[in-house]
Amino acid sequence: MSDWLPSLKTATPADGYELALKLSRLTVKFTQPDAAVRDRLRPDYAEDADSLIAVSQVVATHFATVAAANDYWRTAP
Amino acid sequence: MSDWLPSLKTATPADGYELALKLSRLTVKFTQPDAAVRDRLRPDYAEDADSLIAVSQVVATHFATVAAANDYWRTAP
Amino acid sequence: MSDWLPSLKTATPADGYELALKLSRLTVKFTQPDAAVRDRLRPDYAEDADSLIAVSQVVATHFATVAAANDYWRTAP
Amino acid sequence: MSDWLPSLKTATPADGYELALKLSRLTVKFTQPDAAVRDRLRPDYAEDADSLIAVSQVVATHFATVAAANDYWRTAP
Amino acid sequence: MSDWLPSLKTATPADGYELALKLSRLTVKFTQPDAAVRDRLRPDYAEDADSLIAVSQVVATHFATVAAANDYWRTAP
Amino acid sequence: MSDWLPSLKTATPADGYELALKLSRLTVKFTQPDAAVRDRLRPDYAEDADSLIAVSQVVATHFATVAAANDYWRTAP
Repeated sequence: MSDWLPSLKTATPADGYELALKLSRLTVKFTQPDAAVRDRLRPDYAEDADSLIAVSQVVATHFATVAAANDYWRTAP
Repeated sequence: MSDWLPSLKTATPADGYELALKLSRLTVKFTQPDAAVRDRLRPDYAEDADSLIAVSQVVATHFATVAAANDYWRTAP
Repeated sequence: MSDWLPSLKTATPADGYELALKLSRLTVKFTQPDAAVRDRLRPDYAEDADSLIAVSQVVATHFATVAAANDYWRTAP
Repeated sequence: MSDWLPSLKTATPADGYELALKLSRLTVKFTQPDAAVRDRLRPDYAEDADSLIAVSQVVATHFATVAAANDYWRTAP
Repeated sequence: MSDWLPSLKTATPADGYELALKLSRLTVKFTQPDAAVRDRLRPDYAEDADSLIAVSQVVATHFATVAAANDYWRTAP
Repeated sequence: MSDWLPSLKTATPADGYELALKLSRLTVKFTQPDAAVRDRLRPDYAEDADSLIAVSQVVATHFATVAAANDYWRTAP
């Protein structure tokens, strides 16, 4: 199952940010595989300021990794 | 939609800090696309010391990335 | 007992993500060796949005390490 | 308004630490521009052990950035 | 008392992980030197999912440092 | 007042860890300058498992910085 993330390369920082969002959400899917439970939990964080900030922290950590993997898009066209 | 963040380059550390603020807020917009909900949540964190500290942590993480992307503005004019 | 993690090398980013998941779970096993207690605790986090986000943060931190160890899979085939 | 932080360079690690403190506090000012609200919130964190630890975490993250920007003051006189 | 940690070098990633666990626990010993209090606190975190996740975060941060110190065991035999 | 931290260099990893502990505690002193308040808060975290874990996280972050500043003590005698 190792083909869902073939590379950390993205064309732009914006694409890298979206990859960071995807990487953040994956842990929840791996840890709670039941989609019905995940759907039930969604309002718990999507309507809670502190939860949204915590999600932002996870995304920031992944974005740091993706940005480094892309050499910060310094030579992006 | 990958043109909202063409580059992590900024002219100065201060501009980099403002980019970090922007990057921090983006996750909330992606995770809670409903602007009315976001507006309702605003007092929950803007008037809560612990929430503001948590936001600061997210910004600090993004600032580290932006600073690295700019080689810490070492050669800034 | 040092043979359970011979290397941080993985073939792809996806495999690296799964290694990060494994590294995250290991601390719980080391800190709470009683499997019965761990099983009892599982619903406490697998059905709690904030706990799942916190797990995601741990995974993000380990993924950064694994990604660096693999030079971000830049030269992956 | 990008002249409030012209550089991350500091003469010593101690000055770098103070810059990290400044960077930590800035997010609160940007997120809660009302000084009266900020003053009202101050006892909420300055007299709460967990809030003070959380502030310390933010400062630690910024200090890492400032230290890297100064090449860890390795060649400081 | 600086001989309790002569080096961050370890033979394998698994040994490095165990060093990260040790580094994580040390702060508690330094901050709460009374062993009787520490023993009393143990069930508070060893039987609490969120505390175990928080411990995992600390270990992940130390593992990143230990891994970098060992150049990610890239040339491990 | 920039002479309280002339350098991040330490002789050994153990000394580096103690410097990380010192750096962690400094934020509290800067943010809550009143020693009497700090003394009053001490039991709030020294006898609380979650607070001790949070302190450990701050120390882990500073230790990463100090370790990098010392090139991970790779060439330590």
